[in-house]
Amino acid sequence: MANAPASEAIGLDNDFPNGQLRIYGLIGDPVSQVRAPSPMTQRLRQAGLNAALLPLHVPAVVLPIAFGGLKLIRNLDGLVITVPHKIPMAELVDRCSERARLVGAINVARREADSSWSGDILDGVGFVRGLIDRGFDPNGQSAFVIGAGGAGCAVAMELVLAGASVRVFDVSAARANALAARMQQANYSVASVETADPRGAALVVNATPLGMREDDPLPLDPALLSPEMLVAEVVMKPPVTAFLKHAMARGCQTQLGEAVMLYQLDAQVEFFRKGLA
Amino acid sequence: MANAPASEAIGLDNDFPNGQLRIYGLIGDPVSQVRAPSPMTQRLRQAGLNAALLPLHVPAVVLPIAFGGLKLIRNLDGLVITVPHKIPMAELVDRCSERARLVGAINVARREADSSWSGDILDGVGFVRGLIDRGFDPNGQSAFVIGAGGAGCAVAMELVLAGASVRVFDVSAARANALAARMQQANYSVASVETADPRGAALVVNATPLGMREDDPLPLDPALLSPEMLVAEVVMKPPVTAFLKHAMARGCQTQLGEAVMLYQLDAQVEFFRKGLA
Repeated sequence: MANAPASEAIGLDNDFPNGQLRIYGLIGDPVSQVRAPSPMTQRLRQAGLNAALLPLHVPAVVLPIAFGGLKLIRNLDGLVITVPHKIPMAELVDRCSERARLVGAINVARREADSSWSGDILDGVGFVRGLIDRGFDPNGQSAFVIGAGGAGCAVAMELVLAGASVRVFDVSAARANALAARMQQANYSVASVETADPRGAALVVNATPLGMREDDPLPLDPALLSPEMLVAEVVMKPPVTAFLKHAMARGCQTQLGEAVMLYQLDAQVEFFRKGLA
Repeated sequence: MANAPASEAIGLDNDFPNGQLRIYGLIGDPVSQVRAPSPMTQRLRQAGLNAALLPLHVPAVVLPIAFGGLKLIRNLDGLVITVPHKIPMAELVDRCSERARLVGAINVARREADSSWSGDILDGVGFVRGLIDRGFDPNGQSAFVIGAGGAGCAVAMELVLAGASVRVFDVSAARANALAARMQQANYSVASVETADPRGAALVVNATPLGMREDDPLPLDPALLSPEMLVAEVVMKPPVTAFLKHAMARGCQTQLGEAVMLYQLDAQVEFFRKGLA
């Protein structure tokens, strides 16, 4: 991840922001913690767009009305979507990608030329790009994903697409089974397993929210981790969860949760540019 | 008007825009021509606010719905309002300043602590600050204002407050009379005159839109201008109108229309900060 000063990277001068600015909004509740606006604004401008990503604090209860208002702003071309809007926004846009339908959530939306809105979810894409950038090619590898919610679904699907064989565990076996069945119907082959035992996997992913709070239990018994495993998180806060600390102590390589966000910025720019064609 | 590079003045770094950004929107249709976002963003940040002014292109027909949506965005603290929204926005906010009620229009609005919205019009303030900054104190001076519309009303009122004696002319005598009567009721003493004859005035102001188009007639006969007069415009585009060119040719000092915008930036920051108290 390049980290050039924004003043240079954005090419800021007396003309920013100007009247021709194209706006992308990051909607969430809260939004004060989000980190994407600065690096995303740099990337949009490096891609030749006179644009910026700006945090928009939208409470959940007013989301449909707020989105209705945002759609009327002619120079607002797209949205990045965070908690708690990912699932409801999938209902509010006019169409979703196949993977967004499977996950039941979107984290990006763009205005099309006909003013309709399209949604997609790029969390899994960011996650896998992070793996590949660190030299871990999922192709032919065995992966163990803990959590069959939205994040687990997005990660599992993208790992299958990248050629991995994927096992999914959830404390609710019914939930893991439902995910596997849903994905099977869309030709994503995923195995639902009933014990939190990752042995044999080259990649272990915590795709549950466990680790956000200090008193959360660990997503699985760290004694089952071995040094040849790559252990990855989707939890961004804290940056290094208790689970990752255990993995490091056992000699595992680790991928922080922030990789999901940082490595999907380019994918988000690609997604937004398609709407401008 | 200081013109430091935005990269320094804004203090941009990798943390801009960040999740704590407070947003001010400049609404208009079109907005591509507006020049305030960059210098206003610099001033907001110099005032210690983590904030930016961003152009929002809102078509007139959807203004009430778009404003309804914008009000739901919790980190949007205020609006700057340009054509064609100045008059309808005066109806859409919860309260207006006395001068905004007299003008019947607002060009700034802010969210109050109780989430209600207050509006004001600062065009006249900007105009008079421009005069004072160039060494022309209106106190005790005679001013001749052409145009009894919103701009003429705002300019005339602020000139009266600054101690000038003001004559207003409009091609519609009824309109000029109505303005004078309305202002009289609010204790702003303004004389309505029936001929476009500025003689005797130290300040002559074109507060009509005449000069925006190449084939517009002049607001008054330039033969009536004399070198000791200061001649001022409210038309911003073109920067130097035909009327100002005639005034210059006759040896008059001139004030460009852009002064109305540039000199009210600080007044707008003051207005917005009151809402944050």
